[in-house]
Amino acid sequence: MSGIDVAALSAAVKRRMQMAADLFEKVHAVSVDEVGITRPAWSEQDQAAADILAEAAGEIGLDAAYDRAGNLCCNLAGKDSAAPAILIGSHLDSVPTGGHYDGLAGFIAGLVAQAALSDIDCTPECGIVSLGIRGEESVWFGIPFLGSRLALGSLPHDQLDELRRSDTGRTLADHMADVGIDVDALRGESAPAISDASARAFLELHIEQGPILVGEGVRVAIPTVIRGNIRWPYARCTGRYDHSGATPRTYRQDTVLATAELVHRLDEFWQVQEASGAPDTVFTAGKFFTDSAHHGMTKVPGRTDFTLNFGGTTEKFLDTCRNRVDTLAAEIGARRRVTFELGECVTGAPAPLDSALRATFEETAYALGIETRRFATVGHDAAVFHRAGIPAAMVLVRNAHGSHNPEEAMDLGDFRAGVQVLTAAVARLAGEPV
Amino acid sequence: MSGIDVAALSAAVKRRMQMAADLFEKVHAVSVDEVGITRPAWSEQDQAAADILAEAAGEIGLDAAYDRAGNLCCNLAGKDSAAPAILIGSHLDSVPTGGHYDGLAGFIAGLVAQAALSDIDCTPECGIVSLGIRGEESVWFGIPFLGSRLALGSLPHDQLDELRRSDTGRTLADHMADVGIDVDALRGESAPAISDASARAFLELHIEQGPILVGEGVRVAIPTVIRGNIRWPYARCTGRYDHSGATPRTYRQDTVLATAELVHRLDEFWQVQEASGAPDTVFTAGKFFTDSAHHGMTKVPGRTDFTLNFGGTTEKFLDTCRNRVDTLAAEIGARRRVTFELGECVTGAPAPLDSALRATFEETAYALGIETRRFATVGHDAAVFHRAGIPAAMVLVRNAHGSHNPEEAMDLGDFRAGVQVLTAAVARLAGEPV
Repeated sequence: MSGIDVAALSAAVKRRMQMAADLFEKVHAVSVDEVGITRPAWSEQDQAAADILAEAAGEIGLDAAYDRAGNLCCNLAGKDSAAPAILIGSHLDSVPTGGHYDGLAGFIAGLVAQAALSDIDCTPECGIVSLGIRGEESVWFGIPFLGSRLALGSLPHDQLDELRRSDTGRTLADHMADVGIDVDALRGESAPAISDASARAFLELHIEQGPILVGEGVRVAIPTVIRGNIRWPYARCTGRYDHSGATPRTYRQDTVLATAELVHRLDEFWQVQEASGAPDTVFTAGKFFTDSAHHGMTKVPGRTDFTLNFGGTTEKFLDTCRNRVDTLAAEIGARRRVTFELGECVTGAPAPLDSALRATFEETAYALGIETRRFATVGHDAAVFHRAGIPAAMVLVRNAHGSHNPEEAMDLGDFRAGVQVLTAAVARLAGEPV
Repeated sequence: MSGIDVAALSAAVKRRMQMAADLFEKVHAVSVDEVGITRPAWSEQDQAAADILAEAAGEIGLDAAYDRAGNLCCNLAGKDSAAPAILIGSHLDSVPTGGHYDGLAGFIAGLVAQAALSDIDCTPECGIVSLGIRGEESVWFGIPFLGSRLALGSLPHDQLDELRRSDTGRTLADHMADVGIDVDALRGESAPAISDASARAFLELHIEQGPILVGEGVRVAIPTVIRGNIRWPYARCTGRYDHSGATPRTYRQDTVLATAELVHRLDEFWQVQEASGAPDTVFTAGKFFTDSAHHGMTKVPGRTDFTLNFGGTTEKFLDTCRNRVDTLAAEIGARRRVTFELGECVTGAPAPLDSALRATFEETAYALGIETRRFATVGHDAAVFHRAGIPAAMVLVRNAHGSHNPEEAMDLGDFRAGVQVLTAAVARLAGEPV
């Protein structure tokens, strides 16, 4: 495999766009609900999608199989079957009433890349495997990345019987068995399906879930890092309900004014951090509510529940957030005579995307004349591969209206640009100059 | 009636405390529910209470009767039956699952005052009438002060058929008929039962509904003014739901951060106002809630509902509040790309309590060695009498745990102090030096 013509490879990608469009359509048909797309993890729907995609892989000439956890693995054989493979993939499940492209686009991108390489008769040095990953969305079993964690051996097997699907109440093992998985075989697995010895890179194309590329008029981003986060899902402020007219300031224990001050001061803190060395951070208080059973326009509010959620690219920033939250809650609580019980604090470490892989993506994009942007992104399976010691990188494709809703709107022209970058990079990584 | 001995009058009040305690107990027995006191307006319960109190009035030698709206009127005849009367009273209804003393204490105080004057053989220059007012609490028919407004002719009679009780859905007229009121006679009334020609003063004793007297260790307050207010019961902030990780600050339309800033800046405004010439003001955002059907820890919140409620002693202050709310909502909304729809704005004018009557209360309290405090108070029937041109003043009695709950805790010793002040002032107003 030498001397690949980038233009010829990109033309091959372009010719495979009809296949991609057909696959999006076929998968849509088996997972559409009344208003959007619903493909639960390890369900009839994601199994039907996987079967459609496996059949397409066979038609391309790939070797399609499922690992013990049900992840679809489609292999384009390389010259050296013992060499660590290049993995390309994303997830097959969707959220309830979600959109057309979140996850699915990344798997179809891998198939297109493999087909285009085959179409120009390129045999890579190592195997190239498209992964259709199960159970990425946390909505189904409470935690995300189940399929990739099972493939990489980072989900304890007792979780198979402990995690229950939020809507059915049945266990992960039960739902796996429903779609034909031999759960006992999975439990008895002696080594994970994928390790840093068997894989040299994990490449994930995904729709952008935010508005930046639409806002900037750019089709593709090469994200720098998957943000870590520090979250308080069950924070509470307790004060005292009092007559709003009869209670002077000095006697009040007003939880709305206290929580509003906390949230406002954290917003100011975020602004300062952004301006002084911690860009690409986010802060959200997504829930903030007085108690509908007790609140009233003429009552000093005695209880407020809320969430706090910081995302950042470094552990240091997240530690700073924790300190700031603790300090402000103590100071405001004492001054306003209320009690902040912040509750459980959930953290996730940032996952830096591999700088060599990112450079390869950016250089191939540049060679193809495709403008890119750099910014931090959110949780994806790529973070699990990074944590397993496998270099990971991503391509984000412009998409309107965010994700996790039926309005997701990725243009297939933008998808093609993303897949062209992905495919050229894969060709280069697989042993060929581009 | 001349040369009343204050000590003898106060001793007479003290001797009538057993009657007061018995009446509290008897009324309690007809209106207790499983956890508190429930005496709806124009119900079996407030009628039973009124009948008990009318019987007690008869035993004291008063002429007890109901006006056409069902307000209980117990007259201690004066020397000049044509002279404008001194009215003493408060309301007989309670909120659902309310407390023992809110309202009832004020009517029993009047009976004790009349009994004590009778006990020392004092015949006042003018009639002294105890009023047991119906329907003061807004919870039953949506607006407050119904009994006093009917007595004073300030409630349009079409409201009798339009106002519906919040829990039963039946009209005010229906509920009045239930307790034996001739609603047609009320509708046909040619003149209100009470006017500034028939009444020279309205005096209302009420439990304090806030914590000031408990906090300061003082038994009695003579309030200066019934606060006016400006309220937004249905304010809303609309932005856009977005992925909390994928959406940078510049693209966000975050309604929690916007509303938290609005509320926090209004709190700062309140502090500045208090410090610079508008004391006795209050600010409350009693409801503040994201939409439980759509909010989430990992979503930028796209909608927040809230209430704003300012109380103040002057129209000027309330106008300043309105301007401040409008200005801040516009400025923050534009800067944060969200829309504040403040909705209906409800205002109530402040009702200054009569300075001469207040001075009489304070002087008699001083003569009795009873320490008092001055501060603004909240909505009471006294405001309706003030608006009808009848000078009004109040005595507040120390009470723990606020009002409108079963924990109301007025000490009968504090009640006695309040009634002693009230009775001595009535004696003085009725023509005698004290």
